[in-house]
Amino acid sequence: MSDKNTVKDQTSLNQQEDNQSRRKFLSQAAATTAVVATGSVAANNLPPNVPEWQKHLGKPVNSNPYGQPSKYESSVRRLRVPWLTPDSIASISFTPLAEIKGMITPNGLAFERDHGGLPTIDPEQHRLMIHGLVEKPIILTMEDIKRFPNVSRIHFIECPANSAMEWKGPQVGRLQFTHGMTNCCEWTGVPLKYILEEVGVKPEGKWLLVEGADSASMSRSVPMEKAMDDTLVVFGQNGEALRPEQGYPLRLLTPGWEGNTSIKWLRRIEITAEPSYQREETSKYTDLLNPRDPNRKDLIGKAYLFSWIMEAKAIITFPCPEKPLKEHGKYVINGLAWTGTGKIKHVDVSFDGGITWKEAELNGLVLDKCWTRFSMPFEWNGEEVLMQSRATGEDGYVQPTLKQLRDARGVASIYHNNAIHTWKINKNGEVESVQV
Amino acid sequence: MSDKNTVKDQTSLNQQEDNQSRRKFLSQAAATTAVVATGSVAANNLPPNVPEWQKHLGKPVNSNPYGQPSKYESSVRRLRVPWLTPDSIASISFTPLAEIKGMITPNGLAFERDHGGLPTIDPEQHRLMIHGLVEKPIILTMEDIKRFPNVSRIHFIECPANSAMEWKGPQVGRLQFTHGMTNCCEWTGVPLKYILEEVGVKPEGKWLLVEGADSASMSRSVPMEKAMDDTLVVFGQNGEALRPEQGYPLRLLTPGWEGNTSIKWLRRIEITAEPSYQREETSKYTDLLNPRDPNRKDLIGKAYLFSWIMEAKAIITFPCPEKPLKEHGKYVINGLAWTGTGKIKHVDVSFDGGITWKEAELNGLVLDKCWTRFSMPFEWNGEEVLMQSRATGEDGYVQPTLKQLRDARGVASIYHNNAIHTWKINKNGEVESVQV
Repeated sequence: MSDKNTVKDQTSLNQQEDNQSRRKFLSQAAATTAVVATGSVAANNLPPNVPEWQKHLGKPVNSNPYGQPSKYESSVRRLRVPWLTPDSIASISFTPLAEIKGMITPNGLAFERDHGGLPTIDPEQHRLMIHGLVEKPIILTMEDIKRFPNVSRIHFIECPANSAMEWKGPQVGRLQFTHGMTNCCEWTGVPLKYILEEVGVKPEGKWLLVEGADSASMSRSVPMEKAMDDTLVVFGQNGEALRPEQGYPLRLLTPGWEGNTSIKWLRRIEITAEPSYQREETSKYTDLLNPRDPNRKDLIGKAYLFSWIMEAKAIITFPCPEKPLKEHGKYVINGLAWTGTGKIKHVDVSFDGGITWKEAELNGLVLDKCWTRFSMPFEWNGEEVLMQSRATGEDGYVQPTLKQLRDARGVASIYHNNAIHTWKINKNGEVESVQV
Repeated sequence: MSDKNTVKDQTSLNQQEDNQSRRKFLSQAAATTAVVATGSVAANNLPPNVPEWQKHLGKPVNSNPYGQPSKYESSVRRLRVPWLTPDSIASISFTPLAEIKGMITPNGLAFERDHGGLPTIDPEQHRLMIHGLVEKPIILTMEDIKRFPNVSRIHFIECPANSAMEWKGPQVGRLQFTHGMTNCCEWTGVPLKYILEEVGVKPEGKWLLVEGADSASMSRSVPMEKAMDDTLVVFGQNGEALRPEQGYPLRLLTPGWEGNTSIKWLRRIEITAEPSYQREETSKYTDLLNPRDPNRKDLIGKAYLFSWIMEAKAIITFPCPEKPLKEHGKYVINGLAWTGTGKIKHVDVSFDGGITWKEAELNGLVLDKCWTRFSMPFEWNGEEVLMQSRATGEDGYVQPTLKQLRDARGVASIYHNNAIHTWKINKNGEVESVQV
């Protein structure tokens, strides 16, 4: 499924990093501080002056057995926006991407999309039934499921509505809202094929109806091929049990596919001969077409159905509206890229609105259907900059421009906006979302 | 530093997993349930009967903007044991290893070791001073530090006192306490060498005194070679800011070395010509010798100083005292292995107290100085079993037996007990710690 040889070691980029380290990344402020340090350190009421918190005993160990972030991080939160979904039961909260480091999204900050609110499920009472076109229908407890061999894999999840608000123009002025319907966690679970082998799928069983135990009975049709490939029945998230908002105690994970196919609170899998055409895959999660291309007028009014794969996408996470530039000088631009088809091959960055491109460094691990970090040194001298990033997958697919998407699909679509995004750095260092 | 070619793709073990999937891992209970499913499902008050939580709307989205685990997981907690450290300020809490999945320890469950309690630090006021044998002493703010290029790497941390209570005999009957002074997270930070290059180390500067901003001023000496190798100045943990108990806002990370050298709440680095022989590396964190080997009587009363590297270790996490076997049948044994010298090469498992060994499968990613998952199919027929696991590093180092350690060092040591551990499965399926 994936090419072993293209996996990079998490420490393999040292040589490239070495090139960066030769540059001077200290801010002007730090350079000034440095002079102070050489002179009269004590005058600063800074180290080596002992800070107040070092003068008395700290809090007892394990005063919070299940820990919490520092109170100084209280602004780093998921956010729900009432203007997008006035109802709070069928709604979305966004990952604060500007604050996320590395490739793991901590469980407390992973975006949430519920269609009928968040059920509170007793794992002792929870069951997974597998029936339909199978030799041996079965009802499994959580204990049964955990008895199968399990695997742990790091994969992104992205809602197909991520960046949807940007179809018609720059609607929202914050990275959290333009791209925050995604997360990336280490998921632990049982390959679905192990369970399907146990029940014995009949030859005519080609599709799965997967259903959640929420009040919306959120359900999707998944083809057998995906089920037997890399689909997992997941009970663990970043080393602990799934969080309630991620499907506790059990969810499906269809790596690289529309997030809503990774059914949460998984309770039922029915093997069928045909797709079930559920509400959420007919009235929703389809892409209405109204292409501008004069040669494709035949498509107008039609819709893409079952556009499962989340295509390649890259986004610069620093600088961004939440993280402006505060002074001139040298910086390292950071960003995230991912593709539902496999690994990221490379990411290019433009500082002139897409006219010229330069290849970014990929940092850390480059894994299958997983967030990949990229970075590039950047010196800002106070001019206006139109900053873009463009992902290319190992399959050769190149992230499109917004114009290319609009030519092909018009502006009637809601989902699958993976267009190249433009950040404008203004002369005052603030960053805003624009379209070029 | 690490061999790129030995990194395994997280999905590369599918073929081996396929072999396991041919076996039947369903419990007797599930097999019975399966018959019920074929017959009268409705009689069971199970799916497809709709569970209570599916009949009404769930909780609103983002009702908990910074999430929490399910209330049904409230027993999955770090624990402090008063019999080990009566004082709660200089104490330890243990990772609940029996509940941990995959290779990421969630931030809420990562073990904590404080020497003077947990300081509450305002990141705006926090400073890192670097001085001593440098060209340009400097005081850095958090913002200064974040301006350097940063990297994200998944590494374990282990306290050298992990398993210390087992030196003289099986003292504690719980995996959490025999091996829970370790965690494994994705750490984000600046390679220390970038900062040292900025300040310019003088030729005679061969050591670093690193000091924390806690009330213990916890400090250690670190040789320049390690500082310029893979040491990081860390501000991120599993995608978010460091947790307070992990050093918020800033810590050192010396991958693979004694956890206490990864100084938390890092405030000062002094470049020196010699080690500073701090309290915690002379009176503590040394290994007093009293070897049983009659040829090494010269060592008696001496101590190992600066035994930095955490040597190869493997531990079976299922079954274990917290996770007994409930019935006869087929299982998959799971465990964790790590070594401070690099990658795990292989793990062997014994079911007869170390007489015969069989190589386990390594599951998922195999990374440098990182927890590595291993597993092995196992059929339990109700007999007593002496179960062991033994790690071998890519450097060829093989985890020793307790007898080998005692012959070499006696029982006066406290730290660096990486002996092969024995779990005894009793006839009732319960698991206890024994020594053979």
